[in-house]
Amino acid sequence: MYEDKARTEGSTLKEVFGYLDAHLKLVNSREDVSSPPSPRGFGQGGVLRGVEERLKRLGACTELCVVPFGQVLSSLSVVPVGQVLSSLPVVPAGQVLSSLPVVPAGPVLSSLPVVSVGQTYSHLLLAGLGEDPGKVTVLVHSDVDLQPTNRKDVHSHVDLQSTKRKYDDVSLLPWLHVVEAFQAVKQPLPINLKFLVTAAEGTAWEGVEQCLLTSKKRFLSDVRYSCITLDRSPGTRFPSVIYGLRGLCYFTVEVTGADDPSHSDAHSGVYGGVLYEPMGDLLFLLNCLVDERGKILVPGVLDDVVRGEEPPSRDAEPDVEELRSTLAVSRLAHKEDSRRLLLHLAWLPSLTVHAVEGAWSGPGARTTVPLRVKGHFSVRLVPDQTPDKVCLRFTEYLNKVHRHFRRSPNAIRVELTSSARPWVQDPDDPHLGAAQRAVRTVLGGSPILTRGGGSSKMAAVLQRVTVGSLVALPLDLNMGGLKVLAAYLHEVGQLDTNWH
Amino acid sequence: MYEDKARTEGSTLKEVFGYLDAHLKLVNSREDVSSPPSPRGFGQGGVLRGVEERLKRLGACTELCVVPFGQVLSSLSVVPVGQVLSSLPVVPAGQVLSSLPVVPAGPVLSSLPVVSVGQTYSHLLLAGLGEDPGKVTVLVHSDVDLQPTNRKDVHSHVDLQSTKRKYDDVSLLPWLHVVEAFQAVKQPLPINLKFLVTAAEGTAWEGVEQCLLTSKKRFLSDVRYSCITLDRSPGTRFPSVIYGLRGLCYFTVEVTGADDPSHSDAHSGVYGGVLYEPMGDLLFLLNCLVDERGKILVPGVLDDVVRGEEPPSRDAEPDVEELRSTLAVSRLAHKEDSRRLLLHLAWLPSLTVHAVEGAWSGPGARTTVPLRVKGHFSVRLVPDQTPDKVCLRFTEYLNKVHRHFRRSPNAIRVELTSSARPWVQDPDDPHLGAAQRAVRTVLGGSPILTRGGGSSKMAAVLQRVTVGSLVALPLDLNMGGLKVLAAYLHEVGQLDTNWH
Repeated sequence: MYEDKARTEGSTLKEVFGYLDAHLKLVNSREDVSSPPSPRGFGQGGVLRGVEERLKRLGACTELCVVPFGQVLSSLSVVPVGQVLSSLPVVPAGQVLSSLPVVPAGPVLSSLPVVSVGQTYSHLLLAGLGEDPGKVTVLVHSDVDLQPTNRKDVHSHVDLQSTKRKYDDVSLLPWLHVVEAFQAVKQPLPINLKFLVTAAEGTAWEGVEQCLLTSKKRFLSDVRYSCITLDRSPGTRFPSVIYGLRGLCYFTVEVTGADDPSHSDAHSGVYGGVLYEPMGDLLFLLNCLVDERGKILVPGVLDDVVRGEEPPSRDAEPDVEELRSTLAVSRLAHKEDSRRLLLHLAWLPSLTVHAVEGAWSGPGARTTVPLRVKGHFSVRLVPDQTPDKVCLRFTEYLNKVHRHFRRSPNAIRVELTSSARPWVQDPDDPHLGAAQRAVRTVLGGSPILTRGGGSSKMAAVLQRVTVGSLVALPLDLNMGGLKVLAAYLHEVGQLDTNWH
Repeated sequence: MYEDKARTEGSTLKEVFGYLDAHLKLVNSREDVSSPPSPRGFGQGGVLRGVEERLKRLGACTELCVVPFGQVLSSLSVVPVGQVLSSLPVVPAGQVLSSLPVVPAGPVLSSLPVVSVGQTYSHLLLAGLGEDPGKVTVLVHSDVDLQPTNRKDVHSHVDLQSTKRKYDDVSLLPWLHVVEAFQAVKQPLPINLKFLVTAAEGTAWEGVEQCLLTSKKRFLSDVRYSCITLDRSPGTRFPSVIYGLRGLCYFTVEVTGADDPSHSDAHSGVYGGVLYEPMGDLLFLLNCLVDERGKILVPGVLDDVVRGEEPPSRDAEPDVEELRSTLAVSRLAHKEDSRRLLLHLAWLPSLTVHAVEGAWSGPGARTTVPLRVKGHFSVRLVPDQTPDKVCLRFTEYLNKVHRHFRRSPNAIRVELTSSARPWVQDPDDPHLGAAQRAVRTVLGGSPILTRGGGSSKMAAVLQRVTVGSLVALPLDLNMGGLKVLAAYLHEVGQLDTNWH
């Protein structure tokens, strides 16, 4: 820690670090990004209003936007961006944050009208802290997850304090604490900071992209650097800075035996043997997707995977022992060769079948023949693969397999329910160097650059709608994560602002 | 209806039928076999005590037995059969039922101690009505299902009155009403009647069989004919009498990726591509069980299926149109050839995959890699197949496929969680003729003899533990089902009693 003391000596960072060290316990006892905690029932609007209040107390200008759902891209251009839902006046731009008193936290959310998540729109919160033309502007994207973190089957979220936190706010809360720290020690932020806050559950992502595109000249006009935070992935060498993420296609394939959708399941004693059972068809289809070594069997899907692309030598191979022990599996794939594991973790697509829905799933043993079953699977995409093309390939393939190989009269329906484009950044961008220096300042060592296996809807969107570069910082809040963010802002503030 | 009036003219049946006709509405308004209704919490013991009270009010001698669970067969011979749980004295044998006043129904159950279903024993209710040595003795087996009938996915139960009934009592309630009818018109039952009542949920079937074997000389000593009732199966020609049922092997196969059983699922973004995913293994295994035409692919499983056995001409082929419309499917298997459908409905084994357990099953889309998944499937067996041999074949096959073809390092575990032996009766037994005549008396036409596709644990057990023959009567309560039972008792009473 602090091995590169020269970098903090005499700088504002030292004071900020001191504050963060002193207040870490206080930080950990805070409950929720939208203080006071928003009950789940408040929905997306309510949660983002809570976040908005919190940001206003830090002195930010805010806009809570309404983003229409669905295929409304052409009509969206006439929807005024930043249709302000809250009745609060927009704080005039240009206010210097440090001169604003920090408003004491209080239960203001409950007095706001409750806006539930509708089927026709979602919300998007834009906020800005500072407009100093002598500083670069950094955009932070946070996705405030509306799902409670007590999901047993999702353990990819770092628990700042698992028992008290209501929402998955690891992507936003640390930033708020860092801003508070700069304000507390009465130091100006070294950059202009912008926040783009979404609420994952029920967000109309296409609408968000379109909304940002139309506001490119306004909200995004001065954004030079963007940053997202990720949970630290066990097994991956740390400290590190991420310059790419895989994309995602989430599919469902439904097999329907009964013509009447309301028809209940049959009984295997009475009808076992005379039906084309939908479950059999579904198992056949799902089993045709990927081989035992993880190779996707759908023709054409791998055509666009960049041939010969391999992790550069700077990308450290994973720690096989840690990976195996984190997953508690006896053996990893690809002969446990760390180089090949790195390749399959982020440089190649992967496919996972997540669930079979529609059959009974309670305790006990029921002898039903489900007449309507749905398989869930997703594909992680790598650069040069597009969700559209991958979706087309899978749809064609599954229909062909069903019709020509399975030859079942049951109906199938393939649906792409969610997608994210892959994102990869030029690893030579100076922005990544600044992020690496920030990590080294706090954690020491030589932070590596690497790509991640996960997906972020916004990463590729930000790459398209901004002119600048994006980094993803994997945070381990137990390992000085807040200080990494402070140091990152400091380092980016040192970069050449002459970029036009 | 009543086309064969000659058979009822001047007989006791005419009066019984008249009573049933007059009281049908009353019958339908009754709630539950164990009046007053037993809340689910009473468990098996409580429900069977309710049934016992009801039978006592009809004048029956009863014994509520305790049957140990599990592999205790050798020690069972020393457990005294009929260990009486209830403190009520056993009514002395030989009482003539019609001379007993019918005790008015009342809430007696609530005053009895609550006995919950334990892990170590289950209950079995034995009852007898009459011991006239000049009459044959008929044993009725009823399985009182403890599960509420509002299970959406089980629609094989005839709803006498779906909104009010608590338990699946179609196998017992009609018999009680018929006995009441004989008593109401002051006619003796034409036979001695015995009841063997089990409560499906949590019943120790092996223990029941052993218990019956040891009591063969006592409770079963005079039993000549046995009868079970089944729901009427749509598509099957009706009226009919069933002389055989398929057996059952219910399997689970679990694939475990993580060594630590408490380990939660992985995230496909972080780890997708480097794991031997258990779901992929499970899909592969389940897909190897049966082909698209329903043929079981496990070597040796079909070896014991009686070669060349085909439905005799008396077994009517199903109504293809009714079958297709009941199931609301566009096309049935086996080219919709009614003869082949009949073969596959009851003369050949079938296999159904019921569910995949262990993956998330709620709404939405989660990108987890489940590390522990379990497939549920069952096989319907036909005569000459035994659950033991079938279990061995499946276990060997799945382990071999996993080890030699899938070559996955994940652990698998195949378990036979439930089984029932197939049952088939000599179709020339005069007992079946009596049952056919009873059906014809009420419903007219020429009732066919056929075999059913379902399974009954007790059918094969009764065949082994009694010296007599068994029939299964498919009941349609909307079509004179109660009268069919009354006519059946009458017809069986006419059979030659000289059978020793």
